[in-house]
Amino acid sequence: MTDARRVSGAADQADTRPAHLVSTTRLEAFSDGVLAIAITLLILEIKVPDSEHGRLWHDLGRLWPSYGGFVISFLTIGVMWANHHRLFGELEFLDHGLLYKNLFLLGAISFIPFPTALMARYVQDGGDNASAAVGLYGLTMIAISLGYLLLWAHVHRHPELLKSQNSAIRPVVEAQRSAIAMGVYVAATILCFFSPTATLVIFAGIVAAYAFNKSQ
Amino acid sequence: MTDARRVSGAADQADTRPAHLVSTTRLEAFSDGVLAIAITLLILEIKVPDSEHGRLWHDLGRLWPSYGGFVISFLTIGVMWANHHRLFGELEFLDHGLLYKNLFLLGAISFIPFPTALMARYVQDGGDNASAAVGLYGLTMIAISLGYLLLWAHVHRHPELLKSQNSAIRPVVEAQRSAIAMGVYVAATILCFFSPTATLVIFAGIVAAYAFNKSQ
Amino acid sequence: MTDARRVSGAADQADTRPAHLVSTTRLEAFSDGVLAIAITLLILEIKVPDSEHGRLWHDLGRLWPSYGGFVISFLTIGVMWANHHRLFGELEFLDHGLLYKNLFLLGAISFIPFPTALMARYVQDGGDNASAAVGLYGLTMIAISLGYLLLWAHVHRHPELLKSQNSAIRPVVEAQRSAIAMGVYVAATILCFFSPTATLVIFAGIVAAYAFNKSQ
Amino acid sequence: MTDARRVSGAADQADTRPAHLVSTTRLEAFSDGVLAIAITLLILEIKVPDSEHGRLWHDLGRLWPSYGGFVISFLTIGVMWANHHRLFGELEFLDHGLLYKNLFLLGAISFIPFPTALMARYVQDGGDNASAAVGLYGLTMIAISLGYLLLWAHVHRHPELLKSQNSAIRPVVEAQRSAIAMGVYVAATILCFFSPTATLVIFAGIVAAYAFNKSQ
Repeated sequence: MTDARRVSGAADQADTRPAHLVSTTRLEAFSDGVLAIAITLLILEIKVPDSEHGRLWHDLGRLWPSYGGFVISFLTIGVMWANHHRLFGELEFLDHGLLYKNLFLLGAISFIPFPTALMARYVQDGGDNASAAVGLYGLTMIAISLGYLLLWAHVHRHPELLKSQNSAIRPVVEAQRSAIAMGVYVAATILCFFSPTATLVIFAGIVAAYAFNKSQ
Repeated sequence: MTDARRVSGAADQADTRPAHLVSTTRLEAFSDGVLAIAITLLILEIKVPDSEHGRLWHDLGRLWPSYGGFVISFLTIGVMWANHHRLFGELEFLDHGLLYKNLFLLGAISFIPFPTALMARYVQDGGDNASAAVGLYGLTMIAISLGYLLLWAHVHRHPELLKSQNSAIRPVVEAQRSAIAMGVYVAATILCFFSPTATLVIFAGIVAAYAFNKSQ
Repeated sequence: MTDARRVSGAADQADTRPAHLVSTTRLEAFSDGVLAIAITLLILEIKVPDSEHGRLWHDLGRLWPSYGGFVISFLTIGVMWANHHRLFGELEFLDHGLLYKNLFLLGAISFIPFPTALMARYVQDGGDNASAAVGLYGLTMIAISLGYLLLWAHVHRHPELLKSQNSAIRPVVEAQRSAIAMGVYVAATILCFFSPTATLVIFAGIVAAYAFNKSQ
Repeated sequence: MTDARRVSGAADQADTRPAHLVSTTRLEAFSDGVLAIAITLLILEIKVPDSEHGRLWHDLGRLWPSYGGFVISFLTIGVMWANHHRLFGELEFLDHGLLYKNLFLLGAISFIPFPTALMARYVQDGGDNASAAVGLYGLTMIAISLGYLLLWAHVHRHPELLKSQNSAIRPVVEAQRSAIAMGVYVAATILCFFSPTATLVIFAGIVAAYAFNKSQ
């Protein structure tokens, strides 16, 4: 009878595991797809200018906020991809909560082309419109860092999802890093009401720090 | 002679199997690609507003139907992806019918950005235009649940496509669930002629129920 | 010395094979990506109509050429994907010629959204404009079938690319089928000068025949 | 003690390797995704013309710079994909520097649709506007060849990333080729101030030389 229960227990587990603890390969591929598309769609927000005869060089120069937005957002999504890679490198299984927290993160990242286009259009105007454009960009960054915070906190509470050889300390450290990033983004976003330019410089600095920090 | 026939039978099977019972990996990758692109294209339907000086915060606020549509459609496609994952997790082989029923499903899902943009544009107007926008969204949802119904019914009629260890009961249960979802979508879509808002609330509720129902 | 030469020969081969006979996995993934994106971009060509109060149902009805174009092109790209799958299922290696013939095919398939949008815009006008729109669609179909013809003919001339167990007859049969398809597309495209509607019916018929022909 | 240190050294290495020397599969898939999307987005830059009755054939003919831009850029991204394939075929591991140099390359390639659209719009105007459009296209090509130069130089300085059986000479040869390509692109781009047409012919020639040069 003990044996029978053990067998039936194993069968139950086989029945429930595909639903709760599926493997991560296909979710990684789907997430990679979303990130690759979001990063490539950025170029569609740079519009061909309507130039008079001989004015195109000049008009292309005036598009610098578009180029700047493209570079910052491209680097940001690239860094996000590397972070995502690092997160999933820790995981052996995923559950329902991780699936939908990952979907929240993907939603926030795929939102980036919209505030990028807003900044390209309104940052030169200065004043309230520049604040609004930079502010929405900041809100998107806050949502993204919140997504990572939720994901790492989830992994921390569910260490059974980790690859067996991986350290249970890692999720704590990473969740703290995400919380710090989120705090910096909140502060920088509030600053946009006073100086959108300062906010933008901070955003660029954060991304550059990530991209050039080899210790990650 | 019996042996010879057996051998020739085996050869026939080897000849016909690649055509009728091919492996599922590449179809899964293609479907993932389509879903990842459809979900990421949603952001292109939120257009940068033309704002006068100092009006951008206000104008961004007025885009709430766009944000709402983005959130509902993003969650819907995410849930559809998880459902698709569950379906293909059951399958070892696929045949011609499954290929084209899956194509019908992908067509319906990749149609979503259009009614999403319609709703963002017309839901605030109220009246017949709001009904039409929400109605087309509903028709798209009906087509998607029909796609799942056809796919699960197909798997039920062709149990040889299932992974050997998987239960033959599962397709029946899932086909019934798809039929129920389709019924709810039909009822909610008819309701759009009386109250497009009520229809929208039901659509959001269905997606939320899927996303937060851990028993799946 | 014979041994030394044999070793050096092996080294040469190891040196040249990566360049000439690389494995097919990554090209398949790239092609799948291009096809998945082309099929999903089709929806971007259906534009939200500008409707007066209460006119949206009516205006959505007038978009039928857009829906028709979406359905035909979606099915066409789906069928092309299945054909591509069948081609690469035969191959073990690929060479430089196959790489660039495949690129030609992908270029022709990814061109489809443009003539689809042309047809949606001009087919209702009738006359020369409808002929031009349907004619460009036909030229695109001719280019696609030419792509398959070139690819299968290439495989026929380079049987060393085939998986060892696969029949050398298959490429001949498939090249013939591609040539026949190309002939039908040429005839149907010439017909567009007399009756664009008849051409469209033939295009829809070809795709339906492919999609519902289980013997493939 | 020596043994203990050796063991602890191995543990350290196991701890640091995932961060510094991760496997290349997922980066390849991400890069393939970006290239597949960039190549497929090109068609969105060819806009449906607004034609009067009976003028569509004529107006489609006047779009030849759009078709030409589509063909050159499609071939260019296809060649870039093959080059990328060749680069990653050499690698067993990747490090932080490679990750971000690859991101720079992807950024430059995904920028291509913008100058392609500029050329389609302004090349027929001639004069300074044609020079500006072709010039920005040239700057993009320079950035792409710089990306390959940086990547191959990086691999040359870090031979530990190579697959063990691969030659350490290859990166030097490839870096030299990239430097030559970059020099040609710089020269051709300077030429655009005198004759944008000549610059375009050189760009088309470079791509054709790559595509039809079987020795690669």
